[in-house]
Amino acid sequence: MLEDSPHTRIDTALAKLGKVLEANDIDAAVNLFQADCYWRDLVAFTWNIRTMEGHGQIRAMLASQLAAIKPQHFRQDEKEPASTSDGVTEGWFEFETERARGYGHIRLKNGLIWTLLTTMAELKGFEEPKGLRRPLGAEHGHDPNRKTWKEKREQETTELGYKTQPYIVIIGGGQGGIALGARLRQLGVPTIIVEKNERPGDSWRKRYKSLCLHDPVWYDHLPYIPFPENWPVFAPKDKIGDWLEMYTKVMELNYWSSTTCKSASFDEEKKEWTVVVEREGKEVVLRPTQLVLATGMSGKPNIPTFKGQDIFKGEQQHSSQHPGPDAYRGKRVVVIGSNNSAHDICAALWEAGADVTMVQRSSTHIVRSETLMEIGLGDLYSERAVANGVTTRKADLIFASIPYRIMHEFQIPLYDRMREKDAAFYAALEKAGFMLDWGADGSGLFMKYLRRGSGYYIDVGACQLVIDGKIKLKSGQDVSHLTADTVVLKDGTELKADLVVYATGYGSMNGWAADLISREVADKIGKCWGLGSDTPKDPGPWEGEQRNMWKPTQQEALWFHGGNLHQSRHYSLYLALQLKARFEGLDTPVYGLQDVHHLS
Amino acid sequence: MLEDSPHTRIDTALAKLGKVLEANDIDAAVNLFQADCYWRDLVAFTWNIRTMEGHGQIRAMLASQLAAIKPQHFRQDEKEPASTSDGVTEGWFEFETERARGYGHIRLKNGLIWTLLTTMAELKGFEEPKGLRRPLGAEHGHDPNRKTWKEKREQETTELGYKTQPYIVIIGGGQGGIALGARLRQLGVPTIIVEKNERPGDSWRKRYKSLCLHDPVWYDHLPYIPFPENWPVFAPKDKIGDWLEMYTKVMELNYWSSTTCKSASFDEEKKEWTVVVEREGKEVVLRPTQLVLATGMSGKPNIPTFKGQDIFKGEQQHSSQHPGPDAYRGKRVVVIGSNNSAHDICAALWEAGADVTMVQRSSTHIVRSETLMEIGLGDLYSERAVANGVTTRKADLIFASIPYRIMHEFQIPLYDRMREKDAAFYAALEKAGFMLDWGADGSGLFMKYLRRGSGYYIDVGACQLVIDGKIKLKSGQDVSHLTADTVVLKDGTELKADLVVYATGYGSMNGWAADLISREVADKIGKCWGLGSDTPKDPGPWEGEQRNMWKPTQQEALWFHGGNLHQSRHYSLYLALQLKARFEGLDTPVYGLQDVHHLS
Repeated sequence: MLEDSPHTRIDTALAKLGKVLEANDIDAAVNLFQADCYWRDLVAFTWNIRTMEGHGQIRAMLASQLAAIKPQHFRQDEKEPASTSDGVTEGWFEFETERARGYGHIRLKNGLIWTLLTTMAELKGFEEPKGLRRPLGAEHGHDPNRKTWKEKREQETTELGYKTQPYIVIIGGGQGGIALGARLRQLGVPTIIVEKNERPGDSWRKRYKSLCLHDPVWYDHLPYIPFPENWPVFAPKDKIGDWLEMYTKVMELNYWSSTTCKSASFDEEKKEWTVVVEREGKEVVLRPTQLVLATGMSGKPNIPTFKGQDIFKGEQQHSSQHPGPDAYRGKRVVVIGSNNSAHDICAALWEAGADVTMVQRSSTHIVRSETLMEIGLGDLYSERAVANGVTTRKADLIFASIPYRIMHEFQIPLYDRMREKDAAFYAALEKAGFMLDWGADGSGLFMKYLRRGSGYYIDVGACQLVIDGKIKLKSGQDVSHLTADTVVLKDGTELKADLVVYATGYGSMNGWAADLISREVADKIGKCWGLGSDTPKDPGPWEGEQRNMWKPTQQEALWFHGGNLHQSRHYSLYLALQLKARFEGLDTPVYGLQDVHHLS
Repeated sequence: MLEDSPHTRIDTALAKLGKVLEANDIDAAVNLFQADCYWRDLVAFTWNIRTMEGHGQIRAMLASQLAAIKPQHFRQDEKEPASTSDGVTEGWFEFETERARGYGHIRLKNGLIWTLLTTMAELKGFEEPKGLRRPLGAEHGHDPNRKTWKEKREQETTELGYKTQPYIVIIGGGQGGIALGARLRQLGVPTIIVEKNERPGDSWRKRYKSLCLHDPVWYDHLPYIPFPENWPVFAPKDKIGDWLEMYTKVMELNYWSSTTCKSASFDEEKKEWTVVVEREGKEVVLRPTQLVLATGMSGKPNIPTFKGQDIFKGEQQHSSQHPGPDAYRGKRVVVIGSNNSAHDICAALWEAGADVTMVQRSSTHIVRSETLMEIGLGDLYSERAVANGVTTRKADLIFASIPYRIMHEFQIPLYDRMREKDAAFYAALEKAGFMLDWGADGSGLFMKYLRRGSGYYIDVGACQLVIDGKIKLKSGQDVSHLTADTVVLKDGTELKADLVVYATGYGSMNGWAADLISREVADKIGKCWGLGSDTPKDPGPWEGEQRNMWKPTQQEALWFHGGNLHQSRHYSLYLALQLKARFEGLDTPVYGLQDVHHLS
């Protein structure tokens, strides 16, 4: 193929890139990028999760890492087509480093690199036992001393944490801890997952009873065992709970349920954690080398303080404590907040015959679920995407290939289309008094999620109840104080209440570090989540990656894992590879450890 | 494509076939087949599982069925390549009937049809809710009376079998009952699975502790949720048990564990079964319309009768009762039999330090596991097959496309290769006194399985213990009688024994019908399994399909389901479609209901 096809352009660019990188020629490498350029790396080059923006940052990264990483064998993935559209040519490639095999995505403009994604796929010599390397199971031949699979598993279950120490302890056995635990199991890294609930999946089961996933099935697969093709688009919470429970079992995770973490401290001399847990009533001390907090970005409730909360005679609950509507038929309920949980809880309460008022304190971004599926996710995560050959892995990598600095530019046009499509719906909501927003720059839901993890509702019907006045709405007003039986707003409105639900979101995950380890360590780590976009609840300076997530932090041997099912699936791979490399004693030179600008 | 390509040949043949079938022109249809021809139909044309052999049988089937079935729209599957080799052109096609969509495979010789496979894939208007039709899960909009997924599931669990009656009861909750139950669940047919054990998977867990599957993972997938790519090639029994347990849970089967079926009888007037079960100590009467016995082709132990069994003072067990070797260290054990279970049990006993003697009463077919995987299964079920695009579904259909009448001709060359490859191994076994066979016609393991379900061992190491004399062997001798502490063979050999294990296989599944229903019904149905090949344990006349399996029997509304994991997966679809059609009241004209020639 000598003609100027997308395939040829990608081949040419990769050949040049591979050649100069192998030759350690940093100037030449930098010059293959256009001035406006991005190189996002997931572990492969930086042993970190970093986006280098512009020539200067790329040069600095290469100067630090190139000699140690030794990239090689850049070659186009012949199984994935290259393509050109709007002057951008994009394609997929494989590469290697001294230690690992990698996979990447590249976008070219005028023959120069605009965006580059490099990801670590597996460590050489430490590949997962799958496909041709899967375990045999039966042990052929005979040995008088051998144990069966069951005996070995029982021995491990009995001894790990007592006679032998895990290399890793994961605090939190929700979807994040489970996905990471599954990857570590496959990589042969001894790990214990500590979970306060009785059963895997309880963190879903215990939420309000009408809860279903707001993300669709194609976005939610776990590693190794995808949901079957009859799985609901939006799985009910108990069904997801059961799936997580079975997954934990068949993936053979060392999952300590009914276990609470009491404290954790790191011995800087011994390079070892002391993690004190209470397991079924008995204290156990674990001494792992690495500690992962997978306690959930929606894990630590954020409850506002109002005067009079102490004298209010009814019930007060954070949304995470709300059991569902059954006990509140005929009762008066005030829900403070107007995001996902607030809407779901209000709708279920209305259905059950409660008198419900939603207090909207600030504007909310609303998208209709159908519209979001069609316009926002359809190209990557949908039945249509599957039919077009966009596997889950490919969708994850396409999403990962868009630098956060310019992601909003890709998102804004989608939300413009949604606003146009559902114009009548939005007009009706505003007429009902609801305060709408589309994010600071009109970039909509995913950017809000990545920047602040809150501020939106994916509408599955509650908006119509607001429009119809079935859910009463008080908007633009914050709470002044509570009396014995009333929520009083700042404009003097009095809302009689038997129950107040605080659907007021969650704090930064480093709050967990403060609780379990120390305030000092929490402050050393700083705020988790957010990009530094200098938009509400995501203060600058620009960080360019989610703060502290899935990558080294300022506290040695402490890691954060979390996010939605998509992130739990995708980033658990890169976190697991970082942990595996340390377990095997490989050199892992971290480039660009994140600075701390905010304490929470 | 006007040239004479495989694709064109298949197109031409399908166009002709479709045209004459749509025109109801039976003569013309028959003339599209060569004289030596086979048409295997799974439900689509016959509402039965039948192979028509030669022009006469095809003509008779069409004369009976064509007008009612109304086949139409035969078209090549453009996603699967046609090919030609050794003068045979083969390809894949889709078609429809009035009631269903079908899928098929065709082989041509000289432009005429040699083999034709037609299978029903789904009933029109009763498609499974998967892919684009998957359930939404969340119910958008709001309804004061709605129940959550969990509430609906709990209501179903509480009421089915008590307030409401299932359409189907499946007796036996092993892999067969579970796979069938999963398909019926997806088809919306109310079904209860009755299982005597405490937990799904116990029928595996309770076997001897060294047991692993003898079939490899690629052959063993269940419907809907394939094993992950890190699953062992030969899964240990407890791991399979756990998988079945989780599968039963997440597929939402109505699985009554700890429940024993006491009796079943069919009311010919009311067209209804009365099935009496004891569930956790309480009698429950179920009144389904259809009854499926999925009690396992290896379900009903066959224990030989020898003089002196009553005075023998040690333990006597059927292989299905053998708990594993741990209690028999230092004991003397005699194992009667020389097939899979006998070898596995002997090897595990030797490992545990027992003194073991295997009594081989008749010759056994032995293949080494690695060799069987490579030569016998590799083209269809292996990592290599997966890489070549042979999906599980495609592999199942290729296997199904080979008529049983000539299947041995495809098999014999494979076993000739195995014998040659492992010549030294077989020589050593014979030198140790082991009596070998390769099946009546040298066609090996799969034919033995299909004909009689027994007579072989897939070697995973026990043979070397026989060769080395570690497992002692007495071959060519049947048992004469037992004394208080000795097994005496017909040649007078005396084998002192603390334990006698009868690894003597299983009886015909219609023995279950005799136990649960009546001798009369069991006799009306006749023998289950086997092809009528007129080879040992598979008496003629030629039947051409497995007797009574997955298809209507001489007893209205009584069905048999079973076999290995491959068969449980593949044939559960066709049995489920037959049951679903009856549930929906569709006309299901059965062609060629099987005659009964043998009682057991």
